[in-house]
Amino acid sequence: MESQHNLIDSNRVNGTYVYGADRQQVGHIDHLMIDKVSGNVAYAVMNFGGFLGMGEERQPLPWKSLRYDTELGGYLTDLPNDQLKGAPERVPEWDRDRAYEARLHDYYGLAPYWL
Amino acid sequence: MESQHNLIDSNRVNGTYVYGADRQQVGHIDHLMIDKVSGNVAYAVMNFGGFLGMGEERQPLPWKSLRYDTELGGYLTDLPNDQLKGAPERVPEWDRDRAYEARLHDYYGLAPYWL
Repeated sequence: MESQHNLIDSNRVNGTYVYGADRQQVGHIDHLMIDKVSGNVAYAVMNFGGFLGMGEERQPLPWKSLRYDTELGGYLTDLPNDQLKGAPERVPEWDRDRAYEARLHDYYGLAPYWL
Repeated sequence: MESQHNLIDSNRVNGTYVYGADRQQVGHIDHLMIDKVSGNVAYAVMNFGGFLGMGEERQPLPWKSLRYDTELGGYLTDLPNDQLKGAPERVPEWDRDRAYEARLHDYYGLAPYWL
């Protein structure tokens, strides 16, 4: 039955809190970025709201680095907050910059979604 | 280079017009439904706005049945309007009803996204 309860409304994803692996809230999801070719969600763009003085207010997180945690009622990342803080900062037109995308996936220890 | 321009913002998908295979506008996308397990977009839920007297105002379209058409500036479906009109109507809790989902994919001639 579980397999029949896995659809989520994209509008409900936006605004959902994001937690570091240490279960501390780090921000909320602003929107998703979808790969038109595969139809996969590639990134959740998180709004940090000035999280720990980060220069960037928004940061893309590889979708595969997030898991929904029913207890927290939000998305749990694989990385603790300090490592999230150290993630490669978004570059201009980051969503068209495969070199940046590769660096970001490498930082999260994930294979690029396009491979 | 094309492969570097395939990311779309989920917020920009919502509200985008949907066209039948005969290139006639049939409605707009209200939201996407995402499969949490795979991270794939499973459906675009289209708002028909009372399209041709349909009982349902909203209807899920398998994401794989849509292609973005740059000329139209919207999503083009594989089915002409009359066949869209005849699609299995959304049932209560359709997003938890694998039998309905299977019927819908069959109608569109697509393999279920969960297989």
